Amino acid sequence: MTATLTDVLELERSAQELLFHEARTANTFADEPVSDEQLRAIYDLVKWAPTSMNIQPLRVSLVRSAEARARLLPHMSEGNRGKTGTAPVVAILSADSDFHEHLHRTFPHVPNAKDRFPDAGKRAEMARFNALLQVGYFILGVRAAGLSAGPMTGFDAAGVREEFFADGTQEPLVIVNIGKPGPDAWFPRLPRLEFDEAVEVL
Amino acid sequence: MTATLTDVLELERSAQELLFHEARTANTFADEPVSDEQLRAIYDLVKWAPTSMNIQPLRVSLVRSAEARARLLPHMSEGNRGKTGTAPVVAILSADSDFHEHLHRTFPHVPNAKDRFPDAGKRAEMARFNALLQVGYFILGVRAAGLSAGPMTGFDAAGVREEFFADGTQEPLVIVNIGKPGPDAWFPRLPRLEFDEAVEVL
Repeated sequence: MTATLTDVLELERSAQELLFHEARTANTFADEPVSDEQLRAIYDLVKWAPTSMNIQPLRVSLVRSAEARARLLPHMSEGNRGKTGTAPVVAILSADSDFHEHLHRTFPHVPNAKDRFPDAGKRAEMARFNALLQVGYFILGVRAAGLSAGPMTGFDAAGVREEFFADGTQEPLVIVNIGKPGPDAWFPRLPRLEFDEAVEVL
Repeated sequence: MTATLTDVLELERSAQELLFHEARTANTFADEPVSDEQLRAIYDLVKWAPTSMNIQPLRVSLVRSAEARARLLPHMSEGNRGKTGTAPVVAILSADSDFHEHLHRTFPHVPNAKDRFPDAGKRAEMARFNALLQVGYFILGVRAAGLSAGPMTGFDAAGVREEFFADGTQEPLVIVNIGKPGPDAWFPRLPRLEFDEAVEVL
């Protein structure tokens, strides 16, 4: 992997490795705890990355207790249940369509910004769009803490929503196992599209 | 901003600053070119971040020529037209629902993976979901190159689609101005939600 590390970027090579080149999606986890301090530091880092109108719709539900994990596991697809059962922490990442309730503080230069969002369906769409950008930031934030992320979409979203967000304003998007990688944590790295396959210059 | 820099993370403080704390959404750009080498290095970094089944649906159309810019500008919202007209490079980030055509190379351990995606509507949904994660990675990749990103959703998506992707498999999601920041490039930083507002521990 180190062949593609580059000095063209301003980001140090060690950081390129930590976040992108050497980081991998973990499928097994070591029996090593993740601290509350690490989880707080991840949030305090990634919260600064941008969203439209600073709406910040991402919500993070950290599954720590045995009781919460027992509520989650039945909703995971079979292939994900084992690793989700053993990861030190599991984060349910969701989009909150009630983001507009915070705009008087988070977008204060536009008075009554909240009133621009009367339509719950449009709020849900905007929340989902921006929360997905934040899921991307969050995955890299986990890696910034020296931990492996195992993001999954293989779960019953309706079931998770009913179990954890029955009040209705949060839509679960991605569930992420978090911890130090265990033995045989990953498969060989899969190929990426070449520059010319994914990028065009106009 | 430096008050929240932390040694709890493994990522160096200088990298925390470059990617998150000091990076800002730029609204003006310096008259300083962005090189092809920088753009290639950004892609070669962010391509490694994960997507579901390694589908990699993000496509990047780099608007470089005066002719391409003239095709784009009429579709930008009025408030975005000025900065999009002067940014050294503008990237149209889109989701390609024909991602399944690459799976024989990018997900080779599942034979005929392509055949799991016969439904164009479901492909478009999955492409959009994963490309939005990749938009998050891309914005941080621009910052990794020491450049400012100016991501925008204020444009006529149907118009951009018709103008640039008339064949129909790419859906534009976000347009990003890229360059070194110019004078008065940003407003004062907007507040972020506190940890306890965005994160719950279960």
